[in-house]
Amino acid sequence: MRLPLLTLALLTFALGFTQSEDEKQLRAIYDAALTQSKAYDWLNHLSNQIGGRLSGSVQAQQAIEYTRDQLDSLGLDRVWLQPVMVPKWVRGTPEFAYIETKPGRTTNVPICALGGSVATPDIGLKAQVIEVTGIEELEALGQEKIQGKIVFYNRPMDPTSISTFRSYSGCVDQRYSGAAEAGKYGAAGVIVRSMNLRLDDYPHTGSMSYGDTPVEKRIPAAAISTKGAELLSTTLKLNPEIKFFFKQNCKQYPDVQSYNVIGEIRGSEFPNEIMVVGGHLDSWDLGDGSHDDGAGCVQSMEVLHLFKKIGYKPKRTLRVVLFMNEENGLRGGNKYAEVAKSKKENHVFALESDAGGFTPRGFSFDTDEANFKQVQSWKSLFEPYLIHLFVKGGSGADIGPLKDENLVLAGLRPDSQRYFDHHHAENDTFEHVNKRELELGAATMTSLVYLIDKYGTVQPTKIKG
Amino acid sequence: MRLPLLTLALLTFALGFTQSEDEKQLRAIYDAALTQSKAYDWLNHLSNQIGGRLSGSVQAQQAIEYTRDQLDSLGLDRVWLQPVMVPKWVRGTPEFAYIETKPGRTTNVPICALGGSVATPDIGLKAQVIEVTGIEELEALGQEKIQGKIVFYNRPMDPTSISTFRSYSGCVDQRYSGAAEAGKYGAAGVIVRSMNLRLDDYPHTGSMSYGDTPVEKRIPAAAISTKGAELLSTTLKLNPEIKFFFKQNCKQYPDVQSYNVIGEIRGSEFPNEIMVVGGHLDSWDLGDGSHDDGAGCVQSMEVLHLFKKIGYKPKRTLRVVLFMNEENGLRGGNKYAEVAKSKKENHVFALESDAGGFTPRGFSFDTDEANFKQVQSWKSLFEPYLIHLFVKGGSGADIGPLKDENLVLAGLRPDSQRYFDHHHAENDTFEHVNKRELELGAATMTSLVYLIDKYGTVQPTKIKG
Repeated sequence: MRLPLLTLALLTFALGFTQSEDEKQLRAIYDAALTQSKAYDWLNHLSNQIGGRLSGSVQAQQAIEYTRDQLDSLGLDRVWLQPVMVPKWVRGTPEFAYIETKPGRTTNVPICALGGSVATPDIGLKAQVIEVTGIEELEALGQEKIQGKIVFYNRPMDPTSISTFRSYSGCVDQRYSGAAEAGKYGAAGVIVRSMNLRLDDYPHTGSMSYGDTPVEKRIPAAAISTKGAELLSTTLKLNPEIKFFFKQNCKQYPDVQSYNVIGEIRGSEFPNEIMVVGGHLDSWDLGDGSHDDGAGCVQSMEVLHLFKKIGYKPKRTLRVVLFMNEENGLRGGNKYAEVAKSKKENHVFALESDAGGFTPRGFSFDTDEANFKQVQSWKSLFEPYLIHLFVKGGSGADIGPLKDENLVLAGLRPDSQRYFDHHHAENDTFEHVNKRELELGAATMTSLVYLIDKYGTVQPTKIKG
Repeated sequence: MRLPLLTLALLTFALGFTQSEDEKQLRAIYDAALTQSKAYDWLNHLSNQIGGRLSGSVQAQQAIEYTRDQLDSLGLDRVWLQPVMVPKWVRGTPEFAYIETKPGRTTNVPICALGGSVATPDIGLKAQVIEVTGIEELEALGQEKIQGKIVFYNRPMDPTSISTFRSYSGCVDQRYSGAAEAGKYGAAGVIVRSMNLRLDDYPHTGSMSYGDTPVEKRIPAAAISTKGAELLSTTLKLNPEIKFFFKQNCKQYPDVQSYNVIGEIRGSEFPNEIMVVGGHLDSWDLGDGSHDDGAGCVQSMEVLHLFKKIGYKPKRTLRVVLFMNEENGLRGGNKYAEVAKSKKENHVFALESDAGGFTPRGFSFDTDEANFKQVQSWKSLFEPYLIHLFVKGGSGADIGPLKDENLVLAGLRPDSQRYFDHHHAENDTFEHVNKRELELGAATMTSLVYLIDKYGTVQPTKIKG
């Protein structure tokens, strides 16, 4: 029994020693984040000096230039723009909608066009409404009951999920595919209940797709605020014959030139092992995109800034990538992966922050068992910072295309309770981001990157270096 | 080896079965909280129909009547008011202050009187300022440098603590004792930097004490907003001779009659074992007291409401206590404990929510090792709800006076990052409370009470029942 005990003691000593060094580094990272971070000032500029950054917009281009300049000022080894063509969809004049209970008796309700939708006719679209709680109801109703009507998708987000992202996943098919599916039955248009757990007056936009629907068969789609949806549903119960009017003149233009913004600190020992941290620089156009995903961008930039501040030189190459066009195309994420593959770059780790700038709770990992075990072994290091969530799951949309078996993918998981109060809506604005929460997220990301850099990932098929 | 294994298997089966029943109950509690809670509506009324509820005010009395009526409507076994005399301090007309760099050249700054402070002279108080970062500096400065001046306490909250309550503890002596201590050196008044981690324009009030300072020697004390403090400090660095003016006409009146509001479900098996859940019904007067502590009150009421909703009849007696006068006297908490002791009531558990209505993270326990072990054994039950914090520490001010060795004391621990943005300030208002976060807090409290009720506490010295 003596030898194993001794071994154990030595191991404990060795682990204890390493632990203590890591503990110090994490403390230094959190201290620097809470006292010297630039993230909140950067976000202030992106949100309040630039604003919503829809792909192809002037604001998106301003954000590219601003973040490139800020990365330049950090003294990184290299900062560059990666060209990518992006779709350009323009909302046009503010949308307008009302419920008509009888001719001349109308009640206005707040709507917004879904991203990618076609316009209504110039004079608007007025039709009877058929309410459903999901796409699967369309078949039973059939063309007869749908033809010429507006399909109103009114399945609310499930309030009982603790993760609001799960509630979102359970509803978002209505928004994404609702128009394409209703169009098959001759619907004139669709109105979708906003993906929002609160009852309020903000319509929430978001991407939708017509799939392979020919251009001439595409029907307009708009989101209605949750209070508007409740009113419309109640009104329909009282009188199924009422009509709904909406008017929007959004338009899809040809693709335009845009860029991913990339900054890099070259690894001192394993420069060919690349670690990516990122968020997406584009946003929807209704708010200023502070939570989605200005927060993720500035937190990712902050990872490199914090390494500079604490004087930590990564052994592996660390890149921040601000992806363009996550919201309505994912062109930036696809382009980055395409270039990485064509250059045979060896990406070992990618971390995205795209779930809001709220208090961080942990990470979700898309990786194999060996790497998941390794990150779980670091859990106690994060305990003093109340970071407790280390789960398997998705990572981030933009880094997804990089996926291969040698790559550890991760997503920051902030507290999700307030996220969909703001998501894709006019109230996704700077004042709803708390400075400390934003900084704690950046520190949490930096800490994970530090540990990955120090210990490396477990690579089953490739040789490191 | 077979017997132990079999025993283990049986134990696992037995535990598994119990676990599963508890899992179901917790799921039922959270589901009910997220779909049928009254907490948010109650808080809406307390905040927006009544408002700030300073002890002895009309609003405090309205809150007593409103919450008693609401508890009455829940079908509890008993609802009553427990008389308690409370101090009555009145702010008077809005305070006014400016920095005077030279005669006639002034800059207004936001201040508010500290709770319990005396007024300035009717014409206000103008004097030179001496800035310190803590009470401990006074002695070195001595009477010579302090006499006739305004002492400006400007030690900021430490931004590097992950728990903002720890940062608060590290500063609050300036507010609580600053005037009494500066008065000993002949200061004319004190100005205290607001206990706020943000830089903004809200002064934060809070309690202070003159200790045994005779009435005629008491000097006025006010809080200045953090931005005001920064301005004053910078101005002093440029010119130490500048003067500060402030005027406040707050006043202490004789004590008045008030009440704790109490509701009870009588235990079906052990009615003499009493479990308390509570918050404090009084608040400061600047905001509407939504986070401090309207949230804690409605969450505590909600515990009883949720038991009714899921049809759970507690074996032990469950009381909700809405304590009066936590903020400036703790008279309600002291009175409740006094009456409990005089009636020889057997309190086994008390849980307070008084740290804001933010996303719950867990609990802090003031108890012995045996009971702490028991609550820790329930940790995995809370994991699906992202409740991870089970630590030893303080509980709540109002339940503190109940403390004895048979009592398990606990405090709900919500996320603390935003709390001091609002604490005791004009912006502690309803719109800063998120409905789901409030409800999750109530569900978390209810779950703990359910487990305590089901398994009992470990009582070393008394016989249960």
